Amino acid sequence: MPSVAQLLQPVEADLEILLGNLRSLIGAGHPILHAAAEHLFTAGGKRLRPGIVLMIARAIDPAGTVSDRHRRLAEITEMIHTASLVHDDVVDGASTRRGVDTVHSRFNSRVAVLAGDFLFAQASWHLANLDNLEVVKLLSRVIMDLAEGEIRQGLNRFDTGQGFQAYLEKSYWKTASLVANSARAAGVLSSLPLQRLDGLARFGKQLGLAFQVVDDILDFTGSDKQLGKPAASDLASGYLTAPVLYAMEENPALAGLIERELSECGDLEQALQIVRSGDAIPRSRSLAERFAGEAAEALHWLSPSAERDALLGLPEVVLSRLH
Amino acid sequence: MPSVAQLLQPVEADLEILLGNLRSLIGAGHPILHAAAEHLFTAGGKRLRPGIVLMIARAIDPAGTVSDRHRRLAEITEMIHTASLVHDDVVDGASTRRGVDTVHSRFNSRVAVLAGDFLFAQASWHLANLDNLEVVKLLSRVIMDLAEGEIRQGLNRFDTGQGFQAYLEKSYWKTASLVANSARAAGVLSSLPLQRLDGLARFGKQLGLAFQVVDDILDFTGSDKQLGKPAASDLASGYLTAPVLYAMEENPALAGLIERELSECGDLEQALQIVRSGDAIPRSRSLAERFAGEAAEALHWLSPSAERDALLGLPEVVLSRLH
Repeated sequence: MPSVAQLLQPVEADLEILLGNLRSLIGAGHPILHAAAEHLFTAGGKRLRPGIVLMIARAIDPAGTVSDRHRRLAEITEMIHTASLVHDDVVDGASTRRGVDTVHSRFNSRVAVLAGDFLFAQASWHLANLDNLEVVKLLSRVIMDLAEGEIRQGLNRFDTGQGFQAYLEKSYWKTASLVANSARAAGVLSSLPLQRLDGLARFGKQLGLAFQVVDDILDFTGSDKQLGKPAASDLASGYLTAPVLYAMEENPALAGLIERELSECGDLEQALQIVRSGDAIPRSRSLAERFAGEAAEALHWLSPSAERDALLGLPEVVLSRLH
Repeated sequence: MPSVAQLLQPVEADLEILLGNLRSLIGAGHPILHAAAEHLFTAGGKRLRPGIVLMIARAIDPAGTVSDRHRRLAEITEMIHTASLVHDDVVDGASTRRGVDTVHSRFNSRVAVLAGDFLFAQASWHLANLDNLEVVKLLSRVIMDLAEGEIRQGLNRFDTGQGFQAYLEKSYWKTASLVANSARAAGVLSSLPLQRLDGLARFGKQLGLAFQVVDDILDFTGSDKQLGKPAASDLASGYLTAPVLYAMEENPALAGLIERELSECGDLEQALQIVRSGDAIPRSRSLAERFAGEAAEALHWLSPSAERDALLGLPEVVLSRLH
């Protein structure tokens, strides 16, 4: 099974150009933002989101090239993603992300607010200048979904009454909307017919959901080191994800522990034990597999190319994080 | 001399509708955001910015009515303005604004980040759905200018080398850009010819600059109570405005005090004494008068109406805060 970095190989050079552009756009003229930009755009990160946009751009172009407007779209996608991470980390009070200090803990929350706003502002400006109203609508919808998802996530903490639907909605807003809408926007810039635009959006949506469910499973099965953050931190924060929702169906005692916000000694350990021992993890895995399968199916119409192979391989690679 | 509230009288009913819409848009479904929205959209605030958009909409319409799209533009203008205030207060660490607690001091900085992001996101979504690419560009330029201005203001603290040009640029970005671009956008929605669009933008720009210079003068001549914040707080924070820049020309000793960041006992008092005693305040007043005069001139072509009279009266009312 290839790694994500290997799958992104067809657009490796494109991603280098993208990183250079992002660094010079953001850092220009402001020493602290420059440091924040270096921190954000150098350390780690697989650039999966802009990589998908660039691969789609090449896969749907008869000549296999990528236009300047597609490059700009990929940059906007990464700016919006990064801006939302920086602000989420302030809102959630997170001090590390994937093993790296967050901007607000490395600098302070003022710099984090400023850097996030600057990224959102740049994204919105470059978006308008793509001169395509449909693309503006798709990506501004993403910005709204991200805010909505962050709010909903906070509201639903420790709420055992939320159904599976609320979890899937939240996952769409916070993770899948960006992938779905940027994939569709890549098709819009290439004037693809509606049915293919729907295919691209569905690929992005189902891939995003698969990615989120896998992430939520790893919170229970991964080690601190693998995760780059303490294991089971979602549950400890009151975020009820697929494994917890399935486990509550099997064992109502779990709801009781969560309703008292895991506040008594041993509550978290007992809750983890319930989630890890029953069918909740295997059922979550099946859900992720279903989403991944649906993602790959949605792109069956692409003509043969290295990028097509990579795109169709992505859902499997997302699942392989579970092995 | 009428008050701002009196001048806005032709659009008083429109502003009530606008406030109702903003409250229901922002507060829906989230108790803390709801409280923040009540706090933001109830307490004080003269709604000058959306009021200008609404008055222009009526003044340029042959029937004197205001369309739904103009109403939406006015709402977007207020959302962007409010979002930027909420985030600026986090960045500047301000605990009150015009005598009212800021969101981050009333709630906390997490809620302030979330509320500001949600407002920016709503603004960007509704903006895209006005279905006019030129308007999208004008308002997304504002979002970028606001971020740029906040960054530049932070960078230039206590920097006596910055020229008058840098001060005017910063004032344009932070204050005038929103008024200029929303005024122009109101004209774009009514399909006015280019020359009149330029007139609207110039009115907004010069009015915004006049407003900012008056604000900067009041920081030196107003009492804490009038200002709703401690007097001379701009200078104490290292923000060098028109009165300070003029005073440095007259008395180079002032630059020395500022360069050591007013850090020694009595520095601030001595600096204030220099600014207040020379020609700096009268010269700043002349500058504001020039901007105000240019603002009114830019609208000479409007047909007679109550809204025209109010718009042409606004520059004088802005200046009257100095009496």
